[in-house]
Amino acid sequence: MNKEKISPHTVVIFGATGDLAKKKLIPSLYRLYSQGVIDEFPIICVGRKRMSDEAYLKFLDIGKYDKDRKKLKKFVKHLRYIDVDLNKSMCFELAEIVQVFDKKCGCAGNKIFYLALPYFLFGKTIGLIKNCGLLNGRGSKKIAFEKPFGSDLKSAEILHKQIGRFFREEDIYRVDHYLGKELVENIVALRFANSLFEHLWNTDSIDNVQITLAEDIGIENRGGYYDKSGAIRDMVQNHILQLIALVGMEPPKSLNADDIRNEKVKVLKNLRSVRKKDLVIGQYVKDPDSIGYRNEKNVDKKSITESFVAFKTYINNSRWRGVPFYVRTGKRMNKKYSEINIVLKDVTCGIFQRERAKHANVISIRTNPKESVDFLFNAKIPFTRNELKEAVMEFCHKCEFGPNTPEAYETLFHQLLQGNQGLFTRWDEVKASWRFVDNMKRMIKNKRIKLLPYRANSEGPNESFSLLRRDGRNWKNIKRRFAL
Amino acid sequence: MNKEKISPHTVVIFGATGDLAKKKLIPSLYRLYSQGVIDEFPIICVGRKRMSDEAYLKFLDIGKYDKDRKKLKKFVKHLRYIDVDLNKSMCFELAEIVQVFDKKCGCAGNKIFYLALPYFLFGKTIGLIKNCGLLNGRGSKKIAFEKPFGSDLKSAEILHKQIGRFFREEDIYRVDHYLGKELVENIVALRFANSLFEHLWNTDSIDNVQITLAEDIGIENRGGYYDKSGAIRDMVQNHILQLIALVGMEPPKSLNADDIRNEKVKVLKNLRSVRKKDLVIGQYVKDPDSIGYRNEKNVDKKSITESFVAFKTYINNSRWRGVPFYVRTGKRMNKKYSEINIVLKDVTCGIFQRERAKHANVISIRTNPKESVDFLFNAKIPFTRNELKEAVMEFCHKCEFGPNTPEAYETLFHQLLQGNQGLFTRWDEVKASWRFVDNMKRMIKNKRIKLLPYRANSEGPNESFSLLRRDGRNWKNIKRRFAL
Repeated sequence: MNKEKISPHTVVIFGATGDLAKKKLIPSLYRLYSQGVIDEFPIICVGRKRMSDEAYLKFLDIGKYDKDRKKLKKFVKHLRYIDVDLNKSMCFELAEIVQVFDKKCGCAGNKIFYLALPYFLFGKTIGLIKNCGLLNGRGSKKIAFEKPFGSDLKSAEILHKQIGRFFREEDIYRVDHYLGKELVENIVALRFANSLFEHLWNTDSIDNVQITLAEDIGIENRGGYYDKSGAIRDMVQNHILQLIALVGMEPPKSLNADDIRNEKVKVLKNLRSVRKKDLVIGQYVKDPDSIGYRNEKNVDKKSITESFVAFKTYINNSRWRGVPFYVRTGKRMNKKYSEINIVLKDVTCGIFQRERAKHANVISIRTNPKESVDFLFNAKIPFTRNELKEAVMEFCHKCEFGPNTPEAYETLFHQLLQGNQGLFTRWDEVKASWRFVDNMKRMIKNKRIKLLPYRANSEGPNESFSLLRRDGRNWKNIKRRFAL
Repeated sequence: MNKEKISPHTVVIFGATGDLAKKKLIPSLYRLYSQGVIDEFPIICVGRKRMSDEAYLKFLDIGKYDKDRKKLKKFVKHLRYIDVDLNKSMCFELAEIVQVFDKKCGCAGNKIFYLALPYFLFGKTIGLIKNCGLLNGRGSKKIAFEKPFGSDLKSAEILHKQIGRFFREEDIYRVDHYLGKELVENIVALRFANSLFEHLWNTDSIDNVQITLAEDIGIENRGGYYDKSGAIRDMVQNHILQLIALVGMEPPKSLNADDIRNEKVKVLKNLRSVRKKDLVIGQYVKDPDSIGYRNEKNVDKKSITESFVAFKTYINNSRWRGVPFYVRTGKRMNKKYSEINIVLKDVTCGIFQRERAKHANVISIRTNPKESVDFLFNAKIPFTRNELKEAVMEFCHKCEFGPNTPEAYETLFHQLLQGNQGLFTRWDEVKASWRFVDNMKRMIKNKRIKLLPYRANSEGPNESFSLLRRDGRNWKNIKRRFAL
């Protein structure tokens, strides 16, 4: 942990009664505080519901944060809940509280606004921030937006304009919490600080790239949002395209945020639009243990929203010429795991060619369930001369760095407070991502791509397997030993 | 375990009262028998001492082989001890026993002679075998020689001629037990069944290769032999040159024994003679826990025999142009371990260049203390943006294949019985190895290379570190987590 102290900021969280604030945002701020990275910064929690500070703390279940009561008490002293009706743009109280705490804590006007809200409330909230005078005076004014940033390119562009009236791009932090995950952040180091990887990271050595983000849960309480969004908007537009960008990008000029984002956006712009035959969408139907998608709360009984998507795309440049990127993501799958598998071409001399047990070499970066970087290779079975078996070299992240890998949101707050935009998506990245996703959505509609049912708690529609089989390939399934 | 049965052979072991027979040969044969690979083959143990079968079984401590008394009894039924005076070439009894057992077990004349003897007894023993008529009749007649095969090129050539009078090259098995080690055998599979390794196995990717065979023991009861031999003859001529050959060879045409040996011998012939400045020899002196080399039993009090050697050499071909092979091996070092470290060149784009913590990537093949294949790389330290730490991807052989990795001698007997010469050194390999070693020995004498004292239980003379430091390099020291 980098113990460098960060100068005080007033943190204003909008959407403070939501799940995200409760489960991720406030706990992450507490961990930063508890580790001495931040002092007792004022945290102003804004929600719609009327609630006392005591009730809010109870809602947060703050007693469970720490056994050190003294420490906890100090933290709570600067935490306030305040209810605001966005429709009324009335905010004397908010303005006053912020001002009082700013002075008390010596924040010198430095403020962070964190909008843990659906995108259609972004505009109103910015209006409120402006109208309350929270942007006045000296000090930095940074603003963070939870994903999704819009629901398509058009809505994103409208948002962008609204935000641009009050904030400069360098003060805007578009959150994609995947970028805060340690192993995702690590991709840059893996690729560019290791000659082994640098060497083979191209079409000469790589046969294909496979990205799987599988969730075993359904849509839980998010039916209202999810049924409008679907897997493509919810997962592809942000997490998956960001992973493709990190895996695919050219070496950046430096590790500066903008040098990295310059390279990432080039990948996003170079992505080939998905073709009809390379796209599979699905929706889960009930199995003995779970209800089907259409019976979830707040979901249309005739919904045609996809809860699963698999596709193939290519990056149109010389490094990746002819290397397919296969992607799949879905809800209510048989297990929860996220991994990127870099499958190598077989360029061996062929003396082991006839061995049926010979597997492709795979470099596997996993963020879930346990973080690891692994290498699947072929080893000789003892006491045989030529018989091969797949074997795995494993790097268990937790084993090396201890169990206290920071949560994504902890890392993101840390970067946000330091003013480092590297782990946040820039406007041109968002734009390119929506363009890719809009194309996909348009094709589904125009070409009437069939929504395939898949059994809940399964591996998704069989067609996601055919997608690879057609090319003579398979989804890789790597069994670890240590980081189970 | 390949359970294919092997047709019966009479195994005749010369030097049966030696350490090797007791600790390795007979136990390995028992394991093969116990696993059903061989039936109760007749094992005729030949020694100089007079001893009853009972006394010999006691010497073997055979009771400890197995709890299954019935199984053990069956094995012992076909095991005989017989004393023979090589100087007398008298062998009626030996001939008779072999004949009786051959008939009893249906060996059909198939015989294996295993000479666990010093090389200067090889000639006499072959004479005896011939004179006793053991080479007469139908059936295969294979002969195995323990290393060393001679003490220099000249003596090896004399031996070769003597043996050649009675045996064909395809029946001669020159043992180098290192080749029976599972991970050493595995080098061929690693290199030629994995595109990742195949890709980078050359001067474009590899900066240098480091081979360490360190022993923590002294010379024990082998003073008489060792003081005449020294580390160069005892370790370099066989184990180390074989490792260099396996690591360095071009892809063989096939996995056949001779195709592999054709490639290995090319490497041995292409090895650059070691230069004066690239050679370090040492001899251990006492430390509080151990006596010095010159005080070991059966060692000359003024001995100038080296118990440690380190050197640098090159393979003169285009694959290895400019890639140094650094080697070190010694007795009474601070720990016992054997590993081959393939150190990669830094070809990264340089954005992490300034990080002091950045390490070279290393592929490490270890045979001792635990067998493993590991990859040392750079990972990002959590909660930092650019700070690197060395990390290790580990493949623990035992974890994957279970603790029952065959002992080297088990594998060697298995191959010997199957008539597969792949794990044994061919005459031209032996010749090329002695030529390399003779050059080294000659230079030591002619150029008066200084014998450096090193403290027992240390890492050897400091000069072995300077050997690399001079080139801006260091001996790699890789810390494992799982296969400790």
